[in-house]
Amino acid sequence: MAIAMDQRIDAIQRSCAAKPGITSFGGGLPSENLFPRRQLADAAHKVISRANGAALQYGWPEGQKVLREFVSKRLRARGVDVTADDIIITSGAQQALALTVSALTFPGMRMHVGAETYPAALELFRSKNVTPTLDVDEAHACYAMQSVCNPRGLGMSVERHAEIFTSGLPIIIDEAYAELRFDGHLERPLICCARDRAWLIGTFSKTLAPGLRVGWLVPPRQNREQILQKKQDMDLQTGSLSQSVLAEFLLRFDFDAHLVAARTEYQRRADTLVAAVLKHFPQWEFDEPQGGFSVFARTNRTGDDAKFLAEAASHGVSFDPGRLFRSTNQSSPMALRLCYSNVKEDAIDDAMARLAKAWKSFAPPC
Amino acid sequence: MAIAMDQRIDAIQRSCAAKPGITSFGGGLPSENLFPRRQLADAAHKVISRANGAALQYGWPEGQKVLREFVSKRLRARGVDVTADDIIITSGAQQALALTVSALTFPGMRMHVGAETYPAALELFRSKNVTPTLDVDEAHACYAMQSVCNPRGLGMSVERHAEIFTSGLPIIIDEAYAELRFDGHLERPLICCARDRAWLIGTFSKTLAPGLRVGWLVPPRQNREQILQKKQDMDLQTGSLSQSVLAEFLLRFDFDAHLVAARTEYQRRADTLVAAVLKHFPQWEFDEPQGGFSVFARTNRTGDDAKFLAEAASHGVSFDPGRLFRSTNQSSPMALRLCYSNVKEDAIDDAMARLAKAWKSFAPPC
Repeated sequence: MAIAMDQRIDAIQRSCAAKPGITSFGGGLPSENLFPRRQLADAAHKVISRANGAALQYGWPEGQKVLREFVSKRLRARGVDVTADDIIITSGAQQALALTVSALTFPGMRMHVGAETYPAALELFRSKNVTPTLDVDEAHACYAMQSVCNPRGLGMSVERHAEIFTSGLPIIIDEAYAELRFDGHLERPLICCARDRAWLIGTFSKTLAPGLRVGWLVPPRQNREQILQKKQDMDLQTGSLSQSVLAEFLLRFDFDAHLVAARTEYQRRADTLVAAVLKHFPQWEFDEPQGGFSVFARTNRTGDDAKFLAEAASHGVSFDPGRLFRSTNQSSPMALRLCYSNVKEDAIDDAMARLAKAWKSFAPPC
Repeated sequence: MAIAMDQRIDAIQRSCAAKPGITSFGGGLPSENLFPRRQLADAAHKVISRANGAALQYGWPEGQKVLREFVSKRLRARGVDVTADDIIITSGAQQALALTVSALTFPGMRMHVGAETYPAALELFRSKNVTPTLDVDEAHACYAMQSVCNPRGLGMSVERHAEIFTSGLPIIIDEAYAELRFDGHLERPLICCARDRAWLIGTFSKTLAPGLRVGWLVPPRQNREQILQKKQDMDLQTGSLSQSVLAEFLLRFDFDAHLVAARTEYQRRADTLVAAVLKHFPQWEFDEPQGGFSVFARTNRTGDDAKFLAEAASHGVSFDPGRLFRSTNQSSPMALRLCYSNVKEDAIDDAMARLAKAWKSFAPPC
């Protein structure tokens, strides 16, 4: 539901979202099926009803302690040197990134990124006159997704990991999808060996519910006070209601069991989509995802992926055009992110058949 | 619950908040008594339980339409030329202000402000190298609270209104407390006669519950797209959960009746505090508030208001030191904001008696 920088893409995606008949492979939305509605509804009712509870009142900029303790405990279990005081609860991972960027970057800076990456990060960098670059040697800092990279759904390569680590540069580590590797494996966060120059970002948006807008940031210790002041300048604090609901939920329900169920469901949907892509687009290239929400399919055609999106929409299918994920912002060779995360399994094959028709009419075989 | 720029003040206020025995006149917190807990709890349970509801999923950066319609309808009734498309739902008034500042200001800019004003606005201006100034003639833009100014609780003077209007400068209009004038009167917003250079900010934080973090911004029409992009860069969107809960609440309950009850309660507390200040501090000056949450009491003493806060805390009372509200950041002549909003009426006189003891030991009569 993000605005695409390209106005045409934004217009098509908004129009698709408003039509009930469209199957959407766009947006990186978690599965509606996985929201623990009953548990969250009960938690909300309880924390709002509580006299003198925290849910409706102002809170501190760093966020509620019980959440900071939850996050720090999980990170400590992975070998990260953190306490609850090192965690800052943010309004989603995006705000954690925005805070980091506001502290770390300067106009004219170059930021090392992967060949494809999270579009809202690229847009944020560009808005600050920070140029994304694939070349770590010419970069002033690095942005990397660990364990599960968006959009390919793969872990970080050993080479890139080593390159980033040995660069000695500040590192922004985005773990938005990290806990959604299908095999449950979590990479050892780069922050473990670069505590004083790493900024670790995480969120409950992909694992639980994005509507809560609860993420976190672990800045280097020397930047904590600065970030807290920036956080206050930006929005005073992350919503007390969301934090209280989440804290109550985590206290009573088994988050790890929820993650297991989520990984299972996403793997099943990924397998179904992979089979459908192989069937309907044998000529396209892609990696089988190891986790996350999407397949990044690459064609060997040059062309305007926004026009292909418009064609696909007329066949009742939408997706995220590949250019959005590229540091170059280039459409060619055309590619597309297909999110299986919020499409029911039994709808996937049929939608891909319609996408194949759209592709055929958009790019007839040579 | 905001961080004071002054580290000492921050430390004392945090320590006071952690002690149950302290009576706090600080923080600008709405009354716990006024939270419609049952109605909000029911609304939350309902919207979270709803299959395919908006509460847990991603939404668009501009916010939910039903809320934008609610806000625009109320503004139209006051003569403002707006539709739902002109409203951007923000993570509280603070984010509306941060968005405005990021679009409107430049380093070295001078911002016209009142003699005392909202501390987090002053901090935000300073963080962007924008200098607050009382002199509108040397300013590049104006920041003004309408209907009810923080901390004095008065409307804007006719002179200042005219001065700001005739300046032709961009105007940031902060209506955070506007609907909480005791007489229910709302000033005609300056935006009515300066639609293309006024940025109107409002919030449900003071009228309903700050824990929701739902505010709004009406930017000039030519700035809407730019602000939406900045909003997305900052946190993607305002929390869906809060928006859905609020929308459901507003649909089923009488917000205007709630406002009437709130104004009545705040007026009663204001009257009690005014009587207590007159009794215990006959030498202090203050204006009787016409609305809002606080009395701004001025002494004729020079001194360090942070030290007085420490003394008051040792007597079981806290408040917001006057320097925080001054564009000059000066402590002298010493002043203090006393928020009656979240102090029970029967606790006010006793707390002021303790504050008088603290004042006596801090500043013995000459």
